[in-house]
Amino acid sequence: MQIGMMGLGRMGANMVRRLLRAGHDCVVYDRDAAARTALAGEGAQAAESLAGLVQALAPPRAIWLMLPEGAITQETLDTLAGLLAPGDMLIDGGNSFWKDDIRRAAALSKQGLVYLDVGTSGGVWGLERGYCLMIGGPEAAVQHLDPIFATLAPGRGEIVATAGRDSRDPRVEQGYLHAGGNGAGHYVKMIHNAIEYGMMQAMAEGFDIMHHAGDDHVAESLRLDLDVADIAEVWRRGSVITSWLLDLTATALAKDGDLAAYSGQVNDSGEGRWALQAAVEQAVPAEVLSAALFARFRSRRNEKFAEKVLSAMRAGFGGHVESK
Amino acid sequence: MQIGMMGLGRMGANMVRRLLRAGHDCVVYDRDAAARTALAGEGAQAAESLAGLVQALAPPRAIWLMLPEGAITQETLDTLAGLLAPGDMLIDGGNSFWKDDIRRAAALSKQGLVYLDVGTSGGVWGLERGYCLMIGGPEAAVQHLDPIFATLAPGRGEIVATAGRDSRDPRVEQGYLHAGGNGAGHYVKMIHNAIEYGMMQAMAEGFDIMHHAGDDHVAESLRLDLDVADIAEVWRRGSVITSWLLDLTATALAKDGDLAAYSGQVNDSGEGRWALQAAVEQAVPAEVLSAALFARFRSRRNEKFAEKVLSAMRAGFGGHVESK
Amino acid sequence: MQIGMMGLGRMGANMVRRLLRAGHDCVVYDRDAAARTALAGEGAQAAESLAGLVQALAPPRAIWLMLPEGAITQETLDTLAGLLAPGDMLIDGGNSFWKDDIRRAAALSKQGLVYLDVGTSGGVWGLERGYCLMIGGPEAAVQHLDPIFATLAPGRGEIVATAGRDSRDPRVEQGYLHAGGNGAGHYVKMIHNAIEYGMMQAMAEGFDIMHHAGDDHVAESLRLDLDVADIAEVWRRGSVITSWLLDLTATALAKDGDLAAYSGQVNDSGEGRWALQAAVEQAVPAEVLSAALFARFRSRRNEKFAEKVLSAMRAGFGGHVESK
Amino acid sequence: MQIGMMGLGRMGANMVRRLLRAGHDCVVYDRDAAARTALAGEGAQAAESLAGLVQALAPPRAIWLMLPEGAITQETLDTLAGLLAPGDMLIDGGNSFWKDDIRRAAALSKQGLVYLDVGTSGGVWGLERGYCLMIGGPEAAVQHLDPIFATLAPGRGEIVATAGRDSRDPRVEQGYLHAGGNGAGHYVKMIHNAIEYGMMQAMAEGFDIMHHAGDDHVAESLRLDLDVADIAEVWRRGSVITSWLLDLTATALAKDGDLAAYSGQVNDSGEGRWALQAAVEQAVPAEVLSAALFARFRSRRNEKFAEKVLSAMRAGFGGHVESK
Repeated sequence: MQIGMMGLGRMGANMVRRLLRAGHDCVVYDRDAAARTALAGEGAQAAESLAGLVQALAPPRAIWLMLPEGAITQETLDTLAGLLAPGDMLIDGGNSFWKDDIRRAAALSKQGLVYLDVGTSGGVWGLERGYCLMIGGPEAAVQHLDPIFATLAPGRGEIVATAGRDSRDPRVEQGYLHAGGNGAGHYVKMIHNAIEYGMMQAMAEGFDIMHHAGDDHVAESLRLDLDVADIAEVWRRGSVITSWLLDLTATALAKDGDLAAYSGQVNDSGEGRWALQAAVEQAVPAEVLSAALFARFRSRRNEKFAEKVLSAMRAGFGGHVESK
Repeated sequence: MQIGMMGLGRMGANMVRRLLRAGHDCVVYDRDAAARTALAGEGAQAAESLAGLVQALAPPRAIWLMLPEGAITQETLDTLAGLLAPGDMLIDGGNSFWKDDIRRAAALSKQGLVYLDVGTSGGVWGLERGYCLMIGGPEAAVQHLDPIFATLAPGRGEIVATAGRDSRDPRVEQGYLHAGGNGAGHYVKMIHNAIEYGMMQAMAEGFDIMHHAGDDHVAESLRLDLDVADIAEVWRRGSVITSWLLDLTATALAKDGDLAAYSGQVNDSGEGRWALQAAVEQAVPAEVLSAALFARFRSRRNEKFAEKVLSAMRAGFGGHVESK
Repeated sequence: MQIGMMGLGRMGANMVRRLLRAGHDCVVYDRDAAARTALAGEGAQAAESLAGLVQALAPPRAIWLMLPEGAITQETLDTLAGLLAPGDMLIDGGNSFWKDDIRRAAALSKQGLVYLDVGTSGGVWGLERGYCLMIGGPEAAVQHLDPIFATLAPGRGEIVATAGRDSRDPRVEQGYLHAGGNGAGHYVKMIHNAIEYGMMQAMAEGFDIMHHAGDDHVAESLRLDLDVADIAEVWRRGSVITSWLLDLTATALAKDGDLAAYSGQVNDSGEGRWALQAAVEQAVPAEVLSAALFARFRSRRNEKFAEKVLSAMRAGFGGHVESK
Repeated sequence: MQIGMMGLGRMGANMVRRLLRAGHDCVVYDRDAAARTALAGEGAQAAESLAGLVQALAPPRAIWLMLPEGAITQETLDTLAGLLAPGDMLIDGGNSFWKDDIRRAAALSKQGLVYLDVGTSGGVWGLERGYCLMIGGPEAAVQHLDPIFATLAPGRGEIVATAGRDSRDPRVEQGYLHAGGNGAGHYVKMIHNAIEYGMMQAMAEGFDIMHHAGDDHVAESLRLDLDVADIAEVWRRGSVITSWLLDLTATALAKDGDLAAYSGQVNDSGEGRWALQAAVEQAVPAEVLSAALFARFRSRRNEKFAEKVLSAMRAGFGGHVESK
């Protein structure tokens, strides 16, 4: 079916490619002309402007927005709303804040426009593996767009079926989920990323401890010289922590067990912060999530005011001199 | 090849079965006669006593101990050492403390005995999937026992190979690793379990937040009614947190999204505590590991002295009355 | 000087009493007639309505709002704004969210009204000890109200002066601080409470560990039977953790070392949550604050969905049965 | 009364001075001759050797060991035990591990020697303020040494008495506590320090958040420029977090609000680690303690292997480039 794609970065461009391969009709737009041209050469129809994008689509139009977090401004939405007609659909596939989704959907619906929030996981592997989709919005629109979602999703693949799902929504096993009304899609994606943060930090701590098992300050009889690359690899088979994140870790460590190419300054995106906010709003304890988020904050800090406060107190009560 | 197995619980018995299927010659012993008889009926040679176990094996003997944590007493080791001859091998496949391994190996080596510590992951699925083995001890013994390890391990399977491993130890990709000298096997298993704790807690927190997304105290316009079983399932395809732990969660939630069969009192084994101890000894921060461990402690508590201290202070400074 | 007080709960009523004792002229209002009558009997002038409160004050009027968190609605502010005249002052002494202060102050200033946000610490002891005041708003109004602030504040007392403050604002040593523009007062109070949470939780954990030092599962040779009431008391003299919170703990434990009168269900107010939000917005790690907040969340929970998720996974991979 | 002091560092020397001022008879020894000479000039009797120290004391001798953590070796104890006679007393006033106390006391008692473990808090202020003493060991020896303990302790001072203590041990209100049998003294001191860690970290986080309230990345309308020195000072009067640690913070910040003299590399001593170990052994959650300890670990780290693992995973699944 026909779909418009606005935003042709790594994610958006690959999603278009996956849709084109399945025979869908894609009209694309990006502020960057080179990005548009590239996809035009691969079979998409490139529009020169937002207005051009809208005009090239047959009603009811469906435009998928695949923009960086924070890039969907009210101005963009107003512009689009001015160009679209009742019954048209806007799909936000980026990492928006779920409360914004609820607000936007309500505002757009007054103009007869339909808004869907779609949490999209897949990263650089999505083109080949497909994208795990978590969809929030009205069921009618979700059903209308089913061919698009089904193509973008990974499909059943060779993954062993989960017992007891026979009477359940079959779309889920294809890798796309209608999670609920507006906001639900990005909410579920937000929690996915929060879990991801926690799992990554668990992995990081474990490898860190092993990395230091042979440190000089360890008593010589207890010192262990561990090959973390081999350890990551062996855990890929038959262990409880078998996971894609472990696969990625094994690949990175096989290349360089010291990971010297990295500085260790780790960004965080909005999802981790929003998930912590959701936990607090619901009075749900989330120690692992918060620890994982704070570890990323710490990784990027160069100053140490908190620690200086500690040192100042220690100097005050005990005359303690700082470690060098 | 021939091997003795002492301890025929769920793990030990299934390991014997896996070895028998591959044609190995297994002599088995357990204090529980029924456990011995069961395996005798499946092709193993059952011994009536430790002495019988030793006598039934041809030197150099190899006896695999598959006992619950803490069950390998000094007395057991002394008894075994008294029965064995120089060159014989003891393999501790349970969850022992790695520093005990180092101490035991040194003591046994004085009598010419060889000790191996083998972290064994696989649980109830090991019989079919194989056991991920993390081995500590002298290379000669590890090589001698290679047929046993190779059979117990999962093998390559259909898991995609990690790039850049061509020149590395091929055993690792079969699912067994000679991690280093004594202690290294259980150390690596200890860290494996610590990562497991953290990953599990990350998952638990995420599902907990979603479980409460529709709570009454959430503003009605923001309330979401999420199907956590479907969410777990959709994440199995194409998401970043794809993992065996997620598969297991999806299976449990498909059966009952409320998990009503569980009380939520979660045990912890020694590994999590030892890993935290290792982190502290090495001055490595381990916030996620400790949070995961403490969450298990809290899950089993019925009393609230710490919280009462908080309430008493709040009453003292603010006249605050407790929540009911 | 003359001041109006709206809200005659424990805090508001005692603040009026402290002001009356110092000779200030207090006009008071509360929705509860009994509260008004009580203070009228102690020398205050009671108004029957908000309008009456405003009329009883001479311009430029100053009205101190001492209401529970969340009780200052836009409607109340609109009503007050309709009654007041340019140059009049509204002082919010409750625990409002600092971003609300900034928004409100801007809105009210368009009508020529002055808004002050005053974080007020003191609890049930404020009447005698005075209230620690953290003030946000324009300096002119802060100076105008100085007699009120100086009376409410504790004053120098017998607290040892801090070296190096000779050239600094002398009000601070009297126990009131003009922290900055609007929002700054409640921001500083918010952080005060966050620190309070963390200090309280530190205390709670320490006493909890000691409370369990003689538990049955501790090896008998290591079991200690500690008197936590005496311990709290001895630390009040010469130890590093000497503090008012410790004094309060010692008092509570002297009464009952088991704190049996408390259930251990601990409320949290907005400040802890807002402080965590501020930390996240500024990318500042705040592990202790978040841990303290989550401990309170946990203290009030009866359900254990997160823990059930853990148990379900453990049953799935290891056949583990839950602790009873 | 007469007492021997071994170890004349900052703590030991000042304790001798406090004892001398009260008229006690102090025989002192330190490996450093200058330290001995200094105190000899202040009225102490200096011994040239351990043997000399023992000879200068009349039986039953009492020798107070005030040595850095880890400095009390088995060799020292053996030497002392060889010189002493049954009934003599050894007092370990340093920061020893409480399980070592139990072991040592048992060993020494076989030779008729009495061992006391005394947690000593007071730091550089102890000479003037007195030392808070937490004593473990047999009551008879504690009573025998009462004049020493009473002198070293702060005494009642002007601290308000805690209600409900009339029938309790009066020594406690003088600032010294017989906490229990051997080990109890250092156990209580260990928990004291753990609470201290947590309170300090709570303070550090709060000041850190305020330090960043005016950061460039904060929206301009929400940016606050806070004077942390004044804030610390105002909290000293009438606030809930009034404490000695706050006094010390206020002093340090009055000198320099940026604490530029400090690097922020914060040492930790054994107590924090042992307290975490005790919590784990007793299955008591201790999130704040562990967070405070880990924050110190992090403050001293220059390498970021854990964080590199995170970055490597992020590069693997999302092509994410690190923050610079």
